[in-house]
Amino acid sequence: MTALDQLIEALRRLPGVGQKSAQRMAYHLLQHDRAGADALARALQDAVRNVRHCERCHTFSETPLCPICADRHRDARLLCVVESPADQAAMERTASYFGYYFVLQGRISPLDGVSTREIGVDQLLERAADGQVEEVILATSFTAEGEATAHVLAEALRARGLRSTRLARGVPVGSELEYVDLGTIAHALVDRRST
Amino acid sequence: MTALDQLIEALRRLPGVGQKSAQRMAYHLLQHDRAGADALARALQDAVRNVRHCERCHTFSETPLCPICADRHRDARLLCVVESPADQAAMERTASYFGYYFVLQGRISPLDGVSTREIGVDQLLERAADGQVEEVILATSFTAEGEATAHVLAEALRARGLRSTRLARGVPVGSELEYVDLGTIAHALVDRRST
Repeated sequence: MTALDQLIEALRRLPGVGQKSAQRMAYHLLQHDRAGADALARALQDAVRNVRHCERCHTFSETPLCPICADRHRDARLLCVVESPADQAAMERTASYFGYYFVLQGRISPLDGVSTREIGVDQLLERAADGQVEEVILATSFTAEGEATAHVLAEALRARGLRSTRLARGVPVGSELEYVDLGTIAHALVDRRST
Repeated sequence: MTALDQLIEALRRLPGVGQKSAQRMAYHLLQHDRAGADALARALQDAVRNVRHCERCHTFSETPLCPICADRHRDARLLCVVESPADQAAMERTASYFGYYFVLQGRISPLDGVSTREIGVDQLLERAADGQVEEVILATSFTAEGEATAHVLAEALRARGLRSTRLARGVPVGSELEYVDLGTIAHALVDRRST
């Protein structure tokens, strides 16, 4: 296999990249941006070498404790559970949550053989039982797997006497009712709140 | 900037990859495929180090002469001009062309400041004047820029007494006439051939 074919094969391992895109990327880098290829190779090696998981919340971190867990000014009574570092980043960008996080390793998916053990539920239960956490906010996805994960977590937390809440379901901001799916409208109706 | 942010930035240099995809790729590699990240880093470095341009046709090659130019059994009377190694690979996959190639460095694009000099027209004229080439097949894209490039090349070749042809325009194989754009149908009508 030539170096070019090997590069195309390696690029195909990226999520969302098929044969055609991988080829286009390889040709682009070699034809127009060899400096970019070098920079990407270095960035990959640096990241693999330096990015570890935070000991406490398991998000990506270059230090044993991530900057959020190391921040003493956050509200220790709140613990938000998300499925991935990407979801945590999205929560942070809302600038409306000031508690701590726990990042699962994905979500429960029996079909793919992903069970509670794999996603780190035991570590979550240990973390939530630190005596300071009063409310665990379940912010897993609103998909079948995310809902199942939230359900399992809620049960496990309740069994240990810990209170959990779930993000509200409802009509997305900015949407016209006509174009919102019926399940969402039904949930928004059930969860309606007084004004 | 953290190693993670640096990786996201480096991934964004890939064509067709925006902030969101770059983030998803970085998270995926670090969470689920660190071996893939290592493999990609090595493949990038190998390719940048080893992949050069063929001395004769300018396609990507790890040897001074690419395998096609080094093949003595091809038809030396035919020279096919394409815009990129990707286009050359597409031509080869048709398995219906047995001459040699000349790979331009892109196409003429006055708006982007890309002139005949940049895409290697001088080298093409020199290559086509080897005394063996009888027909230069212009296989640049059927876009405004590709057409302009073909036009400029045809003029330059004619001035040197070299014959050039252009790939046929027409209705793509497998398409229903109803869904083919009018310009294509008009061209197919003008270029109609007796059966």
